[in-house]
Amino acid sequence: MSGSVVVLSGGLDSTVCLALAVEQASPVTALTFDYRQRHWVELDHAAGVAGYYGVEHEVVRLELPRWTSALTDKNVDVPEAGASGDEIPPTYVPGRNLIFLSVAAGVAEVHGADAVYLGVNALDYSGYPDCRPEFIEAFTEAANLALKRGSEGHLIDVRTPLMELAKAEIVQLGLERGAPLHLTWSCYRGGTVPCGRCDSCALRAKGFAEAGVADPALS
Amino acid sequence: MSGSVVVLSGGLDSTVCLALAVEQASPVTALTFDYRQRHWVELDHAAGVAGYYGVEHEVVRLELPRWTSALTDKNVDVPEAGASGDEIPPTYVPGRNLIFLSVAAGVAEVHGADAVYLGVNALDYSGYPDCRPEFIEAFTEAANLALKRGSEGHLIDVRTPLMELAKAEIVQLGLERGAPLHLTWSCYRGGTVPCGRCDSCALRAKGFAEAGVADPALS
Repeated sequence: MSGSVVVLSGGLDSTVCLALAVEQASPVTALTFDYRQRHWVELDHAAGVAGYYGVEHEVVRLELPRWTSALTDKNVDVPEAGASGDEIPPTYVPGRNLIFLSVAAGVAEVHGADAVYLGVNALDYSGYPDCRPEFIEAFTEAANLALKRGSEGHLIDVRTPLMELAKAEIVQLGLERGAPLHLTWSCYRGGTVPCGRCDSCALRAKGFAEAGVADPALS
Repeated sequence: MSGSVVVLSGGLDSTVCLALAVEQASPVTALTFDYRQRHWVELDHAAGVAGYYGVEHEVVRLELPRWTSALTDKNVDVPEAGASGDEIPPTYVPGRNLIFLSVAAGVAEVHGADAVYLGVNALDYSGYPDCRPEFIEAFTEAANLALKRGSEGHLIDVRTPLMELAKAEIVQLGLERGAPLHLTWSCYRGGTVPCGRCDSCALRAKGFAEAGVADPALS
């Protein structure tokens, strides 16, 4: 094992993921994407979390002219939690995890890291297709065929340790591991205080409520 | 069929690919990556080619702090043609086609395009693993699992019409289709005139020589 690359948004899930990677697969490079997201405040939180752990932090800037989503286009409203029912909500960003993982795999090859960590979750989540285990499995195969190291039989492992956990279990895991949950940011709307009403805020609140603890980022 | 996204570097292969896409899958969006490549002059050539066809042209800016390659790092020399033997040469950019295709797939979803074109070639090529058909096949599966449209059964098709062609056949195909080969740029070294000695220049020269025609970009 020669380290890992962790996709770090600065939110709850990716911070818990980083906590696990620091234990399991150091040295860690935390990778954060500046994609002109509405909630760019998460970039500062990602830097704070990476600083807390003292890991290398790389910010990748990605300017896509028309990446239509409520998260990147201020003309599209962020819906209230649950408003999209069973549909994929407008906060879906086309190909986001595919792109983020692709960059992370390239960075892993550059750094000689054997693993990529992504904090996706298919239980308490917003229904995005690129959070499902079947996508992660197919991506891993494609990435290993694309990379020099993979083509030489030295495979990269894509790890999604939160995939099967409920949000409350993620909160508990983070607390157990001493993850700096007080430094994290989840709200899709950005600003200075979380809106408390978007899908991401609602999932986070549900997690802390079910875990029976107060959200340290709100105190 | 509702159009396509073509990854356009401004080189010979991607320009021939664009010529085919314009015939087969219009409307076309040409997608060019500004990744701080040494041969950034290709961006101007891509704009020229897209302008020739009058297709939409999007430039995606991608800043990766340490994307180590002879194509992105001026401290690494671009080798002379053939110098790397059977090894993958230092002009290999870790995960480049994986990343480019991922972005193209996301853009295709945004535009409602059904196909992505990539001008890779596994015959007269530099030995990059992300130019092989097995990678393209695995990527297509991963992308369709990642995208909303794919998860709804509306699959994206990744087309690599040059995959099995020799460079001379690509030149001939471009001439037959009236592709603006005089506007293209292939040299890895950048500058104002092609170096004539890098792998990319050598493959291009071989193609024109075997096709029995003069390179219109050199006249």
